Amino acid sequence: MKGEGRGRFITIEGGEGVGKTTNIETLKQRLQHHGIKHGITREPGGTELGEAIRDLLLRTDTTPLNSMAELLLMFAARAQHLATVIEPQLAAGTWVVCDRFTDATYAYQGGGRELGAGAVAQLEQLVQGELRPDLTIILDIDPEQGLARARQRGELDRFEQEHVEFFARVRATYQARAQEEPERCRIVDAGRPLAEVQADVAALIDGFIGSAK
Amino acid sequence: MKGEGRGRFITIEGGEGVGKTTNIETLKQRLQHHGIKHGITREPGGTELGEAIRDLLLRTDTTPLNSMAELLLMFAARAQHLATVIEPQLAAGTWVVCDRFTDATYAYQGGGRELGAGAVAQLEQLVQGELRPDLTIILDIDPEQGLARARQRGELDRFEQEHVEFFARVRATYQARAQEEPERCRIVDAGRPLAEVQADVAALIDGFIGSAK
Repeated sequence: MKGEGRGRFITIEGGEGVGKTTNIETLKQRLQHHGIKHGITREPGGTELGEAIRDLLLRTDTTPLNSMAELLLMFAARAQHLATVIEPQLAAGTWVVCDRFTDATYAYQGGGRELGAGAVAQLEQLVQGELRPDLTIILDIDPEQGLARARQRGELDRFEQEHVEFFARVRATYQARAQEEPERCRIVDAGRPLAEVQADVAALIDGFIGSAK
Repeated sequence: MKGEGRGRFITIEGGEGVGKTTNIETLKQRLQHHGIKHGITREPGGTELGEAIRDLLLRTDTTPLNSMAELLLMFAARAQHLATVIEPQLAAGTWVVCDRFTDATYAYQGGGRELGAGAVAQLEQLVQGELRPDLTIILDIDPEQGLARARQRGELDRFEQEHVEFFARVRATYQARAQEEPERCRIVDAGRPLAEVQADVAALIDGFIGSAK
């Protein structure tokens, strides 16, 4: 835990169709219930530059994006997000909940695109220094099940159009990261009915809030 | 020199108002004269993604850009440019002339923005591996004189709006790089009348073509 005055940094992670949006709503309600000042943001995005980069990353009508370019765009958006949104809020004592962060880069670019953990770790150090999330909730689901849910939402973005093998690598990387850092990364089985998943997420954040006080 | 079949990679560098556009025309004429197949490109830019990133980097109507985000955007554009334009052309035996490349990143982000050479070198290794230009022509000018010329061209982009101290650091970094790699980096005094500068650039490229055969 960081110093008393500093906000906590919570990230929520997972592949396509895991129910991040709904569970972020659960996190928000629990933080409000406990009277904790907080901000909700997302990656890639969260800033004017980040949203412009998000558009470049998700659009499907352009020439294929080189994987290394994609990795660097993720960290460019992250650098701007950290400097102008996340760091100032944490420093002011506000908790920050971020919809995907660097674990997603390990999972999607390191694992999915097979760039490897080394390149991601190098950029993580360069851009974040010592900053890491205080708590990361990884919503875990079978890729086939998640993709079926994502397809129901409508048109697929550039990542959602990837093959199931891509998402199997994404999932395996998330699981490996949770094994490496069990204190920070908590896996929640998101293949169950939503109410059960939300109950687990609520219990996790309540426990975290209790320990952070 | 690389293997016979591979094209040569030539970069042209310098601060604002050094006359890069005119001197690229000179390079082009000499390459044509010698019957060398070549392509002209630029950074940031040179690809659909690169030009979109260039717009993000040069526009002046948005929130200030974090320096690390700027550095990563430069290398994101570069990764795409290398993979889809520069490498395929060089591999096919085409020479490539690029209007600014990684020396500009050392000069502008490493020097101008004071991020330091270490961060740039790390990204250079990650994105380029062993690829370096075969010849780099650095057009050198007093920043005050260069900026006066740039201002005559009209509206200034986000870099051109920087203070003269910024450009003094850019110039000093270019000069330092030329000292470190005198074989690859040739400095041309661009403060003289244009015809003299072009004559020097033509002599340089003719000499390089002679040695490359």
